[in-house]
Amino acid sequence: MTALQGEIERRGKRVFELVDKHPEPLFSKAGFYQRLMALSMRDERFKAQLFRFVDVLPSLRRSSEIVEHLDEYFCDDGFGPLVGVGVRLARIVPWVTQADEYAARYLDLLEKLARETKGWSDPLGKNSELFPVVNLSVKISALYSQISPADPADAINHLAPKLRPLLRRARELGAFINFDMESYAHKNITLELFKTIFTEEEFKDWPHAGIVIQAYLRDSEADLRDLIEWGRARGTRFAVRLVKGAYWDYETTKSRQNGWDCPVYFQKSESDANFEALTRVLFENESIVTAAFGSHNVRSIAHAQALADELGIDPSRFEFQLLYGMAGPIKRALVEMSYRVREYCPVGELLPGMAYLVRRLLENTSNEGFLRAKFAENVSAEELLRDPRELVKESVAGSGDPGKNGASLDIAPGDVYRNSPLVNFAYKDSQDKMQSALREVRKRFGEKYPLVIGGEKVWTDELTPSVNPSAPDEIVGYGSEAGIPEAERAVKAARAAFGKWSRTPFEERARLLERAADILERRRYELSAVEVFEVGKPWKEADADIREAIDFCTFYAQQMRRLGRPKLTQQVPGEESYHHYWPRGVAFVVAPWNFPIAILCGMASAAVVTGNTVIMKPSEQSIVCGAMLMQVFEEAGVPPGVLNFLSGHGSVIGAHLVDHKDVDLIAFTGSREVGLRIWQSAGVTRPGQRELKHVICEMGGKNAMIVDADADLGEAIAYSIYSAFGYQGQKCSALSRLILLEENYDRVMERLIPAAASLRVGNPEEPGIMVGPVIDEAAYRRILEYIEIGKKEATLAYQAKEIPPQGYFIPPTIFTDVKPNMRIAREEIFGPVLSVLKVRDLDEALEVANGTDYALTGGFFSRSPANIERVKAHLEAGNVYINRSCTGAIVGRHPFGGFKMSGSGTKAGGEDYLLHFLVPRVVTENTSRLGLVPEETPEYRDEFL
Amino acid sequence: MTALQGEIERRGKRVFELVDKHPEPLFSKAGFYQRLMALSMRDERFKAQLFRFVDVLPSLRRSSEIVEHLDEYFCDDGFGPLVGVGVRLARIVPWVTQADEYAARYLDLLEKLARETKGWSDPLGKNSELFPVVNLSVKISALYSQISPADPADAINHLAPKLRPLLRRARELGAFINFDMESYAHKNITLELFKTIFTEEEFKDWPHAGIVIQAYLRDSEADLRDLIEWGRARGTRFAVRLVKGAYWDYETTKSRQNGWDCPVYFQKSESDANFEALTRVLFENESIVTAAFGSHNVRSIAHAQALADELGIDPSRFEFQLLYGMAGPIKRALVEMSYRVREYCPVGELLPGMAYLVRRLLENTSNEGFLRAKFAENVSAEELLRDPRELVKESVAGSGDPGKNGASLDIAPGDVYRNSPLVNFAYKDSQDKMQSALREVRKRFGEKYPLVIGGEKVWTDELTPSVNPSAPDEIVGYGSEAGIPEAERAVKAARAAFGKWSRTPFEERARLLERAADILERRRYELSAVEVFEVGKPWKEADADIREAIDFCTFYAQQMRRLGRPKLTQQVPGEESYHHYWPRGVAFVVAPWNFPIAILCGMASAAVVTGNTVIMKPSEQSIVCGAMLMQVFEEAGVPPGVLNFLSGHGSVIGAHLVDHKDVDLIAFTGSREVGLRIWQSAGVTRPGQRELKHVICEMGGKNAMIVDADADLGEAIAYSIYSAFGYQGQKCSALSRLILLEENYDRVMERLIPAAASLRVGNPEEPGIMVGPVIDEAAYRRILEYIEIGKKEATLAYQAKEIPPQGYFIPPTIFTDVKPNMRIAREEIFGPVLSVLKVRDLDEALEVANGTDYALTGGFFSRSPANIERVKAHLEAGNVYINRSCTGAIVGRHPFGGFKMSGSGTKAGGEDYLLHFLVPRVVTENTSRLGLVPEETPEYRDEFL
Repeated sequence: MTALQGEIERRGKRVFELVDKHPEPLFSKAGFYQRLMALSMRDERFKAQLFRFVDVLPSLRRSSEIVEHLDEYFCDDGFGPLVGVGVRLARIVPWVTQADEYAARYLDLLEKLARETKGWSDPLGKNSELFPVVNLSVKISALYSQISPADPADAINHLAPKLRPLLRRARELGAFINFDMESYAHKNITLELFKTIFTEEEFKDWPHAGIVIQAYLRDSEADLRDLIEWGRARGTRFAVRLVKGAYWDYETTKSRQNGWDCPVYFQKSESDANFEALTRVLFENESIVTAAFGSHNVRSIAHAQALADELGIDPSRFEFQLLYGMAGPIKRALVEMSYRVREYCPVGELLPGMAYLVRRLLENTSNEGFLRAKFAENVSAEELLRDPRELVKESVAGSGDPGKNGASLDIAPGDVYRNSPLVNFAYKDSQDKMQSALREVRKRFGEKYPLVIGGEKVWTDELTPSVNPSAPDEIVGYGSEAGIPEAERAVKAARAAFGKWSRTPFEERARLLERAADILERRRYELSAVEVFEVGKPWKEADADIREAIDFCTFYAQQMRRLGRPKLTQQVPGEESYHHYWPRGVAFVVAPWNFPIAILCGMASAAVVTGNTVIMKPSEQSIVCGAMLMQVFEEAGVPPGVLNFLSGHGSVIGAHLVDHKDVDLIAFTGSREVGLRIWQSAGVTRPGQRELKHVICEMGGKNAMIVDADADLGEAIAYSIYSAFGYQGQKCSALSRLILLEENYDRVMERLIPAAASLRVGNPEEPGIMVGPVIDEAAYRRILEYIEIGKKEATLAYQAKEIPPQGYFIPPTIFTDVKPNMRIAREEIFGPVLSVLKVRDLDEALEVANGTDYALTGGFFSRSPANIERVKAHLEAGNVYINRSCTGAIVGRHPFGGFKMSGSGTKAGGEDYLLHFLVPRVVTENTSRLGLVPEETPEYRDEFL
Repeated sequence: MTALQGEIERRGKRVFELVDKHPEPLFSKAGFYQRLMALSMRDERFKAQLFRFVDVLPSLRRSSEIVEHLDEYFCDDGFGPLVGVGVRLARIVPWVTQADEYAARYLDLLEKLARETKGWSDPLGKNSELFPVVNLSVKISALYSQISPADPADAINHLAPKLRPLLRRARELGAFINFDMESYAHKNITLELFKTIFTEEEFKDWPHAGIVIQAYLRDSEADLRDLIEWGRARGTRFAVRLVKGAYWDYETTKSRQNGWDCPVYFQKSESDANFEALTRVLFENESIVTAAFGSHNVRSIAHAQALADELGIDPSRFEFQLLYGMAGPIKRALVEMSYRVREYCPVGELLPGMAYLVRRLLENTSNEGFLRAKFAENVSAEELLRDPRELVKESVAGSGDPGKNGASLDIAPGDVYRNSPLVNFAYKDSQDKMQSALREVRKRFGEKYPLVIGGEKVWTDELTPSVNPSAPDEIVGYGSEAGIPEAERAVKAARAAFGKWSRTPFEERARLLERAADILERRRYELSAVEVFEVGKPWKEADADIREAIDFCTFYAQQMRRLGRPKLTQQVPGEESYHHYWPRGVAFVVAPWNFPIAILCGMASAAVVTGNTVIMKPSEQSIVCGAMLMQVFEEAGVPPGVLNFLSGHGSVIGAHLVDHKDVDLIAFTGSREVGLRIWQSAGVTRPGQRELKHVICEMGGKNAMIVDADADLGEAIAYSIYSAFGYQGQKCSALSRLILLEENYDRVMERLIPAAASLRVGNPEEPGIMVGPVIDEAAYRRILEYIEIGKKEATLAYQAKEIPPQGYFIPPTIFTDVKPNMRIAREEIFGPVLSVLKVRDLDEALEVANGTDYALTGGFFSRSPANIERVKAHLEAGNVYINRSCTGAIVGRHPFGGFKMSGSGTKAGGEDYLLHFLVPRVVTENTSRLGLVPEETPEYRDEFL
């Protein structure tokens, strides 16, 4: 044992002795909390429900509502015995009234705290100048809602002016300001902001500024050393509050949802060990940085104590920070040992009452929690005081199932589908790559792109320019204009290629898609940049489109492998019947411009991988994107004639090919008007036609979201704004009708308008822009007309003022007093226009939501399990979203498509999708010969080729 | 040990001693066969391939063909090392030329045998009069191809006249005639025939007649005792040849395929024990019956010897019969022990050469074979001589996995779909029930049937008669005639019922179908009888139709349970997305008359179980069947309005409903003309329409079967005849074009015509009729017109002469010299007319087969694995059948439906089918609250209701 470890154990045991000397409940309201804690530890499901209940509790305004929610959370789910607890709970918390507002009135708070603490003195009586009595933590995100990780400069530009008055006043009052750290996405911006503002002349010599370092982040040591270096250059003390980090679930969830490298350590012991490493870095730089330790872990605390001793640091020069209302025995022990202890407490966000305590309780009942180990499980002092680095090693050595916190968290079984990771624009490297791609693509403006027919490039005399909607004088590229002769050539080429392609093993066809996916991945930034210019997509939206194209390729490849193998229908002696699929023939793929690569790629790759041959027509507004996709498939090695590329006018070649007797299948995504025309025309069987013409038809939407009375309004508003105005509302999935209950109408509206007003409208070439231009002049005029209609029909509640002077920019617009029969409530606008409808109750909300011709997407914000179930069951939409945005469907995860006038009932990116490109076939063989019968027939056999 | 067991062991050991004294190979051509036997025992797959090769061998006519087949059977499948064997094999069998003819020239044979054996004398020298030197076994099935188990009287009427001359001549020659026993289906008829003919005055006193009893049959003791009783009444000796039975695989296969109780014992030891029990019955009745024992099992042989001793029966009064060319040591031992031994040998069917021996070899290398145990596995004498009853007990006691021969053979896992068993008309009880049902249904002729709308019976003024096509003056019933007002009422009723029904739990909907299935099962004979009268279905076809209706109900119920549970799309932390389905709305079901209950039930039950509400319209020719189905669903408790029944004219209500804005879905099975019209009309989206109209469309066929040069012609012809003429060719799946290779054209044709000529044409009210009347006068005229066209275009090769004078009977007709461009080769005739096309080779055969507008069913007869694979890959048909009939698709086993102009690519009775009645929907919920994320989301959740 090292001397340090010995010292740690000595001090740790001393803490425990002191704790044991003063037997005292861990939480202040003994019986009830102890029981909740015990139950939570025993039953994970109860714990989850409790957590959800606590989440909604502050938003409930009447006792009856509380009782209802208790009933919903704990009654239906087999928690019978606990209802008693629940009801009692409801009775003992009559004080839960209005508690869902958490504004960042930091200045107010500062004044109040200064007043309240006047006359408090430092109990330790030395080094007091390092530790002002008032210590206020600032949440950066509360000061600016539009922080884009891709655009740190913008965030700092907005945040610094808001922070300066606060810092000035704090300085005047002798208070300390701490920059809080929340999610990883804002971490770099927070650090940058901290360094920027405290390098400013005015604050350069102010020592009472601090920032949080989260030891669970893999980046944390580098960040801390960078801060120290900055601090030394600055020449003034600053403080660091070292914590483990409170967003572990969030960070792992988000990174797994997006396919990102996880920024946090998987093992608790890794974070603990890192906490100690960072403690050492802090103490070694005590000359410039003041350390505060935010942990309840006695080992971490004892380590800091022992290390300080070893390094000769006076105990009065650092402090321990522990949560209000918790771990009283530990606080008391530290005070008895003459350490500096600060008790801290969140204000405003949650009531400092039961809900807050229960949250802490739940955190501390997690399997890894120190308090649980010490106070509930009576783990021995020796065990609790072990060096966390040993535990890391053990865990790595014993490579069993590491569970939730284990190192193999990101390894899924082989047959599980994996989406391509989104680009994480929080990294500078990603920002740089995107900027560089934009510069490169700009150099190619004005290039010409050919048709591709039967593997040959075909140039036509007529060229169609494709312009940048942000700057319509910029021509992104020219597309060759196909006419009837080219369409005929394409059909012939596709028909000629069909025989061989339809008999190419599905494995080979699947690999073609995977090669295309690899190329898309390689050209990812470049293609995103093309989208930014050609269709006005913001960075993240463009990246998501390329990601979706990649996912379509890999998902359909995987699905084809599943469907490709003939499957035994029934185990019958003496006979084997295998069900399998054949391609339908020649497919005509007609795509829109709003997901110019993803949707084109999705329909074309589905058709190709199933063995059909394809003529693909990009939208007239996104020819360059289409040509890029064709390049990708050519490079991937698609055989001549299997995929043909025809840019041109829908009214000419589109109509011709839809009617063509040699086209067997049409995959269309676009407007209702064109969709219905195709559906009708495909009904006619023409002379010489081989197959009944099959149409895959995805059309528009008039999507509604309902906000329940108990909804988390922060979430509801953020997601609604994003769903309505993201990519200018030019998504068939976009939110178009926001349905609010009378009961919370005002509360929602008073936050909705400011949220809309905070949106960054501008040229999406800039990072962090959320609202760009609409696609072209026709769309621009059409949407403006709808706004005029809206002004006549309803009340214009909000319209953005500042939009760029040129380009097809439409200000985000919100109408209120909208009634279900108005045109703006019935017709698809396909632009940044949101109609708000007020309804009496959820019944009416559903009636209004469903009272449309469409059924594409829809959403609901609520924390009432019963209401959520009801909406899940009754909302007429192909994709229903609860407590999240109604756009951004992910391949494989959210199979996408609607019914009614939104589509024929197909699900792009779903397991059934490829079936629409195939016809089923069954091959039956009598396998008995002379009475001998094979015993068992394999469930799958080789492809019939 | 009993005295008998002691004696059995003594004698058995004596046999073994004698066997061991004369070491001699078990088979006559030692090295090669021994090696094959060893390989067969080691590798089941090799054994199966060998068996298949031996099966095809007699039909191969050139050495090159043999080498090719060897290559196909043993090369592709990982049998590399054995090709050498194969090729050598090919070289040592140059004598394999024409050997596929097995005519029953019994008389010839009798003469020859009598001549050859003249002067042979009985080596035992006593009781010779019981054992004529010539002993000829007669296969009944060879004498009449149209034996119907349902109609013993007809079989006897045909067989007796053919047998009498043979019996007379045998008596004259002093020969013995044995009635052979083949499959269980013919067993009762064979017994009945035996008793009938030998009770005739002429043969009543002739003692040289015998019959086989198969000990593996559960019926065998009852049959034997019945025979003995008959024999005693007759008053003349007869003989019984006791065997174990050679069709075990066939019987278990067939009974499992049809869902029947298996007629054979599952365990070999049960058969062995029964053999001994029957031996005792025979000996106890030695005064009237002479016993012959056909077994190689030394225990069975020793038991017979010991029991004879015990009962005081002279060894010269029974005989052992052993196979030619096998088990020489045992035969020699029995002769040395002075028992009577007869060596017997099949003639004509297989060459008495290698192929025959290899078959025996394979039989005896089975895991249960005695010879394998004794000579290959050296099982001890004690073990081999154990009482089989002990082994039975052991097997029952030790309830492990009994394997192929185990008692639990028929118990499948819970989630495996089970078809309803077909009625087995081989049982007298079934025959009686059907006769009784026909009488009962006849009493109801002329009844009137109402429409059913919204749960109410609706009578209209106009009534449509439905006539018996076998006797058009008989009116089976009258249907109410729906007009536009009734159609409108039905749409309203269906629309009104949709809301509630669509939200009824799928489990409840599935149970409705299962109750309907139970009712169909209960009314099975009655409904079959209605079909016999209303649409002219032969018994078995009618029963198969009711069975299919039952299967549709149970299969779709099971499928709905699978599809009904919302399924997690992806395991993602913090979010759950469940994919599930909603019904489409109001379905209009339009069914044909040819499967008047099954197809109507299939489409309607699929629509109902998926939560749609339904208007079902039966064909105008099968209104009574439709009304019966409606009754079934009413009794099953279908809620009012969920299923509505409209009989009436397609041109009036059909067209009206297809175009109706409130009809969301049309399920149609019928003609191409009507199908295309519906497809076109449904393409139009009319004002107020909710959904894109979805059509499930199954149309006609022009189905081809190809007969390869190496086909088993017996099978090819029997299945072709059945496929073409079964139910008068009035199946969309029926064979219409028989494609023959030049090479075997003559050989096929010379057997095809007689086979067609043997068909029983007549009123299907009689059992055993295969060809009844066509559906109505219009069909009658249309088919006769096609026959006239055929006579002009091609050569009339065969037309049946004898058909009933009244009713819509069309003689089965075969045209040759048919060319692919002729009308009779292109157009669907839908009657008993077969076109034969001659082609050069398989390439041309496929070209011709595929050269049609349709792609429904198709077939191929071949024993060339390579050619079979080629046809499986290239034949354009929704259902491809190898070496069997191309009709008779079974729900779940042969998902049915075609493409091209045969249909839209749906598979009735398949796993995808219900999807066409549904729209997919995805419900996504953000499940994270305050950072707490549930760890795992269940793969399935409760229905959204």
